[in-house]
Amino acid sequence: MATAEQLDLRVYTLDVARRALAASQQLATVSGDVKQRWLRQAARLLRSRGKELAAANAVDLAAAPQFGLSPAQVDRLRLTPATIESMAVGLEEVAALPEPIGEVMESSIRPNGLEVLKVRVPLGVVFFIYESRPNVTADAAAICIKSGNAVILRGGKEAIHSNRAIADLLSEAALDVGLPADAVQLVSTTDREAVGHFLALDQYISVAIPRGGEGLIRRVVADAKMPVIKHFNGNCHLYVDVAADLAMAEQILINSKCQRMGVCNALESLLVHAQVAKQFLPRAAKALGERAVEIRGDERTRAIVPSATAATEEDYAAEYLGPIISACVVDSLDDAIEHINRYGSKHTDAIVTSNLDAAGRFTAAVDSSAVVVNASTRFNDGGQFGLGAEIGISTDKLHARGPCGVKELTSYKYVVFGSGQVRE
Amino acid sequence: MATAEQLDLRVYTLDVARRALAASQQLATVSGDVKQRWLRQAARLLRSRGKELAAANAVDLAAAPQFGLSPAQVDRLRLTPATIESMAVGLEEVAALPEPIGEVMESSIRPNGLEVLKVRVPLGVVFFIYESRPNVTADAAAICIKSGNAVILRGGKEAIHSNRAIADLLSEAALDVGLPADAVQLVSTTDREAVGHFLALDQYISVAIPRGGEGLIRRVVADAKMPVIKHFNGNCHLYVDVAADLAMAEQILINSKCQRMGVCNALESLLVHAQVAKQFLPRAAKALGERAVEIRGDERTRAIVPSATAATEEDYAAEYLGPIISACVVDSLDDAIEHINRYGSKHTDAIVTSNLDAAGRFTAAVDSSAVVVNASTRFNDGGQFGLGAEIGISTDKLHARGPCGVKELTSYKYVVFGSGQVRE
Repeated sequence: MATAEQLDLRVYTLDVARRALAASQQLATVSGDVKQRWLRQAARLLRSRGKELAAANAVDLAAAPQFGLSPAQVDRLRLTPATIESMAVGLEEVAALPEPIGEVMESSIRPNGLEVLKVRVPLGVVFFIYESRPNVTADAAAICIKSGNAVILRGGKEAIHSNRAIADLLSEAALDVGLPADAVQLVSTTDREAVGHFLALDQYISVAIPRGGEGLIRRVVADAKMPVIKHFNGNCHLYVDVAADLAMAEQILINSKCQRMGVCNALESLLVHAQVAKQFLPRAAKALGERAVEIRGDERTRAIVPSATAATEEDYAAEYLGPIISACVVDSLDDAIEHINRYGSKHTDAIVTSNLDAAGRFTAAVDSSAVVVNASTRFNDGGQFGLGAEIGISTDKLHARGPCGVKELTSYKYVVFGSGQVRE
Repeated sequence: MATAEQLDLRVYTLDVARRALAASQQLATVSGDVKQRWLRQAARLLRSRGKELAAANAVDLAAAPQFGLSPAQVDRLRLTPATIESMAVGLEEVAALPEPIGEVMESSIRPNGLEVLKVRVPLGVVFFIYESRPNVTADAAAICIKSGNAVILRGGKEAIHSNRAIADLLSEAALDVGLPADAVQLVSTTDREAVGHFLALDQYISVAIPRGGEGLIRRVVADAKMPVIKHFNGNCHLYVDVAADLAMAEQILINSKCQRMGVCNALESLLVHAQVAKQFLPRAAKALGERAVEIRGDERTRAIVPSATAATEEDYAAEYLGPIISACVVDSLDDAIEHINRYGSKHTDAIVTSNLDAAGRFTAAVDSSAVVVNASTRFNDGGQFGLGAEIGISTDKLHARGPCGVKELTSYKYVVFGSGQVRE
């Protein structure tokens, strides 16, 4: 028997999902102009309500120690005038993106005169589960609304007051421009069971997007009845080819590994062609050593870099997100490709080479969301690719792969215009 | 403890999946030319091996009574010179489709000089579960290979010998042109548990595509660890607007309902605007009656058509796939839209109207894979839309929606070319 509280949770989550669906049906046919006004009005409110946001944020900051947040985590939780301004600018940037809905993606006139259009439409209702900073609340809502979807936001308990203040303001802005307030709903309970209830409501929710640790994503995948856009690990590789410019390779290595270590497109594994290993590995080790990055290498790496420790199978599969890198000497481009397709996570992998054939073979054979020639792995990002804001970087192959922006939150329908055609 | 037989099944399915993955990795970088030669060689073999195919088919036909197949089902199971020729032509048509893999779908040069290409790639391994006629074996394999995927085919037990003969011939043709024989594998056991084993192998299989009854699809969705492209019911509607050409409406009604009753894009429900109901319903009833189609209507329909029986809620939600149609008089376009979005299955819905606003509002607000103005619902079909062959009609909104052809079995990757760019 369900307890009264569980029944309440079921009633609550069903109500939220129903409201979201109703809002999404309104949003689906709203003009791009109205959505732009909503985003700009929300930016205005963010700027004018700094004090209210700071007060809500203060409650979360005060509770941070009881959640055991590290100083770095507390720092990310903090809303400052600068972070609030950057949220507002983010909303305005999404407002300025081209309107995605109604775009005719393909069209043809059939021999019988039927006009067949493939037209971009919203997905419906997005359930976004995140453990991140409060600014993600505004970013994610903006992307969902721009693409014509209603969104149910489930943030972390440590940011609930900040998220609530931001979400309220987004709903207020929606009402100001004549959009349904339920277009953006923040889940008001921090009860973990609520997530399970939402994940069962596939009649209302079109897609679940978890953003956080691997445990969260696996749990959502296991429980969700609707499709899930997954954002798994980035075990990213850099392969230094026999035909590499080694100075360029060193810069790309250091930027990929060290520019920001804790993110999914940061480098985790270095592969070096045997013919350039003796030249490249010592300078690579020096540059990494200066940045306190530990190298875990195979035997051939350790023969050249004595300071390197021994790499295990686990190391080659690891996403360190910190100052460690695995390294391996390979005998050929094909061995590098095989290593990457075996140990990698299909996120982002790069080659440094001046050989056109090697670049072509690498980009064709490495099965990752982004394959990069002569540039940093850190570029696999919606903003860097010119997609605008992103809600995550998908490691799926179906629907959305790589940076997941406004277009990746859309579907399409076929719109067919005839003049009485029937099928023979 | 698993029994020896279950262990064998596990070993067998794992082996099939591993072979498929290895084949898919080869296929991913094979030229379009080789895939064309494979398809044309397979067509050649189909034509030259008619006797072998007929012999295998005879075994299935002989066993048909023990599976309780109806005469119509036995007829669909039968391979004749004409059905074999049509399979061969189907393979040649897929061969002639433009090569999908490697297509640059989008590209941009970023301010820092990075060249970002969005390139079409195969999904990997397709697990196709079908209960249909043996010719589906050839069609499905052709679409999968053309899109660079390996395929694991799981056909119905009543067609196992015919399917085996066709699949063997497809593998032989693969070898003839230098493609891996494992690109096409037919599951050799008819044990139902094998399906469950495959559905757990998401490290090897990219997508499961069930095609058959609702029970099959629900079971696959429940068990699959990989994404599923679903092909659910078509509860298709025709709305006759106040501004309809009633002669055209009658033709479209009869074609949508009666041209082929047992298919997913056949009509199941008729909505008529109250202002034209008295004019339209009697002629509609007469035309339907001449084709022995029973009408189940609401009170207002029955007031005009005395022969109509009373429709229940279940009738409005039903996919009859036979000589019954539900009918309802509505007061407005919006009421029609609401009815469709409430009872429909988001498959195919049509309007007959000469009013541009009504057409625009209907196509925008009806949330179905195809929305049709002034033409038959029967056009929602890959061939009719110009996509070429199809493996099904998806009722999903993520990834593929509507007819699922070669392109719908692909993904993409970002290929990035730089000249040493690093991120600031």
